[in-house]
Amino acid sequence: MANAAPDALVALAGRLADASGRVIRRHFRTPVAIDEKDDASPVTIADREAETAIRDILAAECPEHGVFGEEFGSERMDAEYLWVIDPIDGTRSFISGIPLFGTLIALLRDGRPIVGIIDQPILGERWIGIAGQPTRFNDRPASTRPCPTLAEATLTSTSPELFGSGDRAAFDRVAAAAKMTRFGYDCYGYGALSLGFIDVVIEADLKPYDYCALVPVVEGAGGMLTDWNGRTLDLDSDGRLCVVGDQRVHDEVLALLNGE
Amino acid sequence: MANAAPDALVALAGRLADASGRVIRRHFRTPVAIDEKDDASPVTIADREAETAIRDILAAECPEHGVFGEEFGSERMDAEYLWVIDPIDGTRSFISGIPLFGTLIALLRDGRPIVGIIDQPILGERWIGIAGQPTRFNDRPASTRPCPTLAEATLTSTSPELFGSGDRAAFDRVAAAAKMTRFGYDCYGYGALSLGFIDVVIEADLKPYDYCALVPVVEGAGGMLTDWNGRTLDLDSDGRLCVVGDQRVHDEVLALLNGE
Repeated sequence: MANAAPDALVALAGRLADASGRVIRRHFRTPVAIDEKDDASPVTIADREAETAIRDILAAECPEHGVFGEEFGSERMDAEYLWVIDPIDGTRSFISGIPLFGTLIALLRDGRPIVGIIDQPILGERWIGIAGQPTRFNDRPASTRPCPTLAEATLTSTSPELFGSGDRAAFDRVAAAAKMTRFGYDCYGYGALSLGFIDVVIEADLKPYDYCALVPVVEGAGGMLTDWNGRTLDLDSDGRLCVVGDQRVHDEVLALLNGE
Repeated sequence: MANAAPDALVALAGRLADASGRVIRRHFRTPVAIDEKDDASPVTIADREAETAIRDILAAECPEHGVFGEEFGSERMDAEYLWVIDPIDGTRSFISGIPLFGTLIALLRDGRPIVGIIDQPILGERWIGIAGQPTRFNDRPASTRPCPTLAEATLTSTSPELFGSGDRAAFDRVAAAAKMTRFGYDCYGYGALSLGFIDVVIEADLKPYDYCALVPVVEGAGGMLTDWNGRTLDLDSDGRLCVVGDQRVHDEVLALLNGE
């Protein structure tokens, strides 16, 4: 499958999201046991079973591809094709009965994200991004909206508690200049940005499985993703994201993040 | 209709939510114009048309009842029956394309909430609370979960930005003692509490149309709602809410709110 056409890989990504969604729907709003990981973040049987469902398909259909998932680590990181997956991005929402978490599935080729899916299995919403193509939301095109200045922007972030003190001050400078700030969306915020209802997302402390899938989705909708220094995101990024729907506002946000 | 049986009034409340939902679904994720109210909060044509749809039905079916709505003020506040309504609680979520806002419909008799509805028209989710009866979520009973101490609790609030500085310090004391804190849910947080997935909601600066409908819903699910001094909520409350799913944790939360 190493030379498979992109269409086949996009279809495979969709089937991975289908499989994960079946597991997640079975567990949503049931009293699942909640374990704590080393970083104190919660994890449930739904996270683990959903990632297992994805890995089982990959092992059967493309055993030569690499896999890097939140729950079960990495294999063959030097493969040409690497799947980077977070079965439930937003486990805190999941265990709180709030349907704003998502399954994130990215396919990287030689380190560059070429396919990205954000899937919300409870609401039946799916964003599919393919490098160089317009992003799709369910059966229609998705695009960001014009927002040339931060004064007009709706800003989101998952939680103010996820920033360390220095990063928090940087975020607060952006929030003070934005029109409105909302918290609580995890990957769903990038989905709403890709539909033209949110303008800026600022986050810190993300891992590759939290952001790789976002790259084709947001770029294909007309937006722009970098780290806080304006660099393109890759597997080695430091996990601080500056994401805008309208590229004209990017410099203004970066300058505030960097205290200028 | 002043002596109508509660069943007829509950059915009427449901039809009000149906009418409001039809309006809201038509406007969700469309580029509606956003106006600012005197308190800088946003309002849209969806808020206004949804409240109008509700008021039109009330005017036709029970013109002797009072009405107090967020967008168009109050009439006949001294009537035996008073409808207290917020067509879109969470307008910031609505305009951000996030389906976690809700329509709140309360019926008060002689100042006491006897019927409450939380309706999420995009997700097709409805909580119905009737004084003295178990709360229903769609077609099944809803109940809170056991959570005897704050150390085990999931805490939510709409936004850290909604607290003034003194109230923020009080909220932060509760957040520091809770297991997990999440933001961004508006009325949906009380719905999740009533389903047993959130344990404590703390808010400030709410208006009667933000909280009256919550009273029968949360109480009928086994929870407890008071102000920050432990007093029952009524039309004259100061808008600071302390809501718990398990009544055993209420004293602990109140003590922290009051700096003890």
